Amino acid sequence: MISNEPTITAISTPMGVGAIAVLRLSGKEALSICEKVFRPYDKGKRLSEQPANTIHHGVIVSDNNVIDDVLVSIFRAPHSYTGEDVVEISCHGSILIQQQILELLVRNGATLAKPGEFTLRAFLNGKMDLSQAEAVADLIASSSEAARRVAMEQMRGGFSDKLKLLREQLLHFVSLIELELDFGEEDVEFANRDDLVKLVDSIMTHVDQLIESFALGNVIKNGIPVAIVGKTNVGKSTLLNRLLNEERAIVSEIEGTTRDTIEDVINIKGTLYRFIDTAGLRHTTDTIESLGIERTYKKISLAQIVIVIIDSRNSPEAVVEETSGIINRLADNQRAIILINKVDLTDAEQVETVKQRLSENFKGIPAIEFSAKHGLNMELLTHEIINASIVKETEGGDVIITNTRHYESLLKAQENLTRVKLGLLDNLSGDFLAMDIRQVIHYIGEITGEITTDEVLGSIFSKFCIGK
Amino acid sequence: MISNEPTITAISTPMGVGAIAVLRLSGKEALSICEKVFRPYDKGKRLSEQPANTIHHGVIVSDNNVIDDVLVSIFRAPHSYTGEDVVEISCHGSILIQQQILELLVRNGATLAKPGEFTLRAFLNGKMDLSQAEAVADLIASSSEAARRVAMEQMRGGFSDKLKLLREQLLHFVSLIELELDFGEEDVEFANRDDLVKLVDSIMTHVDQLIESFALGNVIKNGIPVAIVGKTNVGKSTLLNRLLNEERAIVSEIEGTTRDTIEDVINIKGTLYRFIDTAGLRHTTDTIESLGIERTYKKISLAQIVIVIIDSRNSPEAVVEETSGIINRLADNQRAIILINKVDLTDAEQVETVKQRLSENFKGIPAIEFSAKHGLNMELLTHEIINASIVKETEGGDVIITNTRHYESLLKAQENLTRVKLGLLDNLSGDFLAMDIRQVIHYIGEITGEITTDEVLGSIFSKFCIGK
Repeated sequence: MISNEPTITAISTPMGVGAIAVLRLSGKEALSICEKVFRPYDKGKRLSEQPANTIHHGVIVSDNNVIDDVLVSIFRAPHSYTGEDVVEISCHGSILIQQQILELLVRNGATLAKPGEFTLRAFLNGKMDLSQAEAVADLIASSSEAARRVAMEQMRGGFSDKLKLLREQLLHFVSLIELELDFGEEDVEFANRDDLVKLVDSIMTHVDQLIESFALGNVIKNGIPVAIVGKTNVGKSTLLNRLLNEERAIVSEIEGTTRDTIEDVINIKGTLYRFIDTAGLRHTTDTIESLGIERTYKKISLAQIVIVIIDSRNSPEAVVEETSGIINRLADNQRAIILINKVDLTDAEQVETVKQRLSENFKGIPAIEFSAKHGLNMELLTHEIINASIVKETEGGDVIITNTRHYESLLKAQENLTRVKLGLLDNLSGDFLAMDIRQVIHYIGEITGEITTDEVLGSIFSKFCIGK
Repeated sequence: MISNEPTITAISTPMGVGAIAVLRLSGKEALSICEKVFRPYDKGKRLSEQPANTIHHGVIVSDNNVIDDVLVSIFRAPHSYTGEDVVEISCHGSILIQQQILELLVRNGATLAKPGEFTLRAFLNGKMDLSQAEAVADLIASSSEAARRVAMEQMRGGFSDKLKLLREQLLHFVSLIELELDFGEEDVEFANRDDLVKLVDSIMTHVDQLIESFALGNVIKNGIPVAIVGKTNVGKSTLLNRLLNEERAIVSEIEGTTRDTIEDVINIKGTLYRFIDTAGLRHTTDTIESLGIERTYKKISLAQIVIVIIDSRNSPEAVVEETSGIINRLADNQRAIILINKVDLTDAEQVETVKQRLSENFKGIPAIEFSAKHGLNMELLTHEIINASIVKETEGGDVIITNTRHYESLLKAQENLTRVKLGLLDNLSGDFLAMDIRQVIHYIGEITGEITTDEVLGSIFSKFCIGK
């Protein structure tokens, strides 16, 4: 409990003008601060005497000036989001009114909440563990059904339950070994080594599954990477713009692994795709341009789907050569789609020849007659994208890891589990085994927040939006 | 009551991603639709059996898929915003989640609310009169303290109360006259004509005050019009951009009276100013350009404050001539401010000479050494703007008209009141008097919505945001 913390406040609804907006107060003084500025229509009613989970109609007043007509909702510790007393003020959605009420609450003793501070308090007050708190931010940011579903599962504790089970098994395990150590001189063995090997195997299987699920989780959260490749001016940007306009997508820009790459995330039929526009490919002796092309090949290697765009006006030989240059570099798990672009500028016979030559040379790879400019065969393209992106379901059940922090902790847990396993097989002494097991417990505890530092908490919650 | 109307739903918080968002349901089926998709954590709890003004924690479920963890607030007819049963669902502020819940509610029988439909229902169910309903939209749109205050006063019924009083007096008046008509043959006089003249005078005074308040109300709602005038390239746009950047303003673009004018509204120390950038002035014989200059003079004539920008590098004679060309055209109630711009490019002596000549020629008009580019003397400029914009307080008390529709109805009421007054002085017969008084009552009734048409309602509520 952090009972000496100040009472915090923030506007919790999205920024902007709307019908209504909601401000939140959380902390010991939530009710008393609200009482100072709220006049209920039901005269004589005292907020602080009202039962939890009730709503009250009145006005917010500053120096006898009525700021707004509002509804006030009351939640009481520990049965609130943060575990503290919470008040929500639902006002008219004018930006001015929202800000005036916020300032008024601050003048009356509340402190402006930092990003994620409500959820941080929920964590510190034991309302949720750390992985659940992180899922709240993922849930708010979710822009595809799969991402929402994974975040929801994690927020509701699916992942935590699984980790809790592993942790309990390990704790039981290590306590038996430590008991042995107390009786060190007597050479007793409380922890049957064969049972322990089986247990470690079973835990390793679980941890391995979770680690494996990260590949899928990452794709769900950040989108399936799709590289768009082709020569300069072949229509890469036109294609990207058309995709952006045609899909009813929540489009966001995320920074790629390299600083200079801005990527567009597009939601196609419920799945997120991260489209990566690459620099135009061409033969060059220029050093700087070579570096750019090197980077393009790097990006291609990170993509799951590669869309190769070629100009239908070029000779079939040139087209095939150009396409091989890209397709021959692809790994087995990468899928390609060829777009024969600018067919509106080419006669049908030429298009047909190019298409045939491509089919002969690249069997199994779809080649689509296309016009990025006019949107010809867009439907076919999105169909092929979806086709190419069928992701192998993990065998780990429902729980999918999407968070890099969790992934890294699991990798460390896995490393230490391996050491435990080897130690067991080598008949390592109990004190060494116990040390390694404690390490595994530590790394699993990092995920759920049993083990944490201010620095870790700071970095997690600073990514939240204000008001949550 | 509109009990056969469908149950409506909408996202009521601003569009975008935030910590939380709120969806509303209103209508007979609000509770039953919500019950179909809501599973309370407190198993066995039935929403429809819960008391009004209570909050319930649970999840929104679609086909056994948990969409989100939510709070549901219940309001019951007639004690709700709309006067109907209302449910508010407070969910996580992901756009995806908001849309999924909205779609789910629609699939379960709710209808998407049209803009302002919640408030329209509040009006139709007698929760507020029409002028109060209109004030709700003004309140949400308010971006200055004065605008918020006027809208708040109107929403809380200040204006309506005043109109109700006038209307009652007139109804009493007309009923006495109509009683006389029933006794037509007997030449009785229930309504003392001298008392009636006094009453009409008093009502006319009130109506006149309300009409007069519209000038102030319009300025409060739409901003004080400020024209920025000067030759091409003298720095008009640079000044406007600097004002936009420096004031912590809610900046919005509104369409001016002429289609081609886009105006910037800036909040300076709590007052709204509508800045009008005009086309550059210069002597010309070109017909098309003359038209542009004509339009500039038209805009200048509509401004309350005119900022004249001159280039400090020009000769004092040219500057004075140029400035007279604008200032001599100003009406008595218009105020001017002269900016001697580009002083960073001019030597101090030249600036001093220009300033002195301006002071001699335009007494009482502030002339400020200025650099729009570097922001020199911006503070001084905003100070002079505020100085020039002190608005005469109306004598009509607190009630200020901001709405053009109200203004027009009041003008018609005034016209008919004048006719009543003249009729009384001319000893016009009771039936004619009664007809004119009924007209006054009609026009006042238009404001509060006693008299209304679907067309009027449609045009009023279509300006609302969705969800209110």
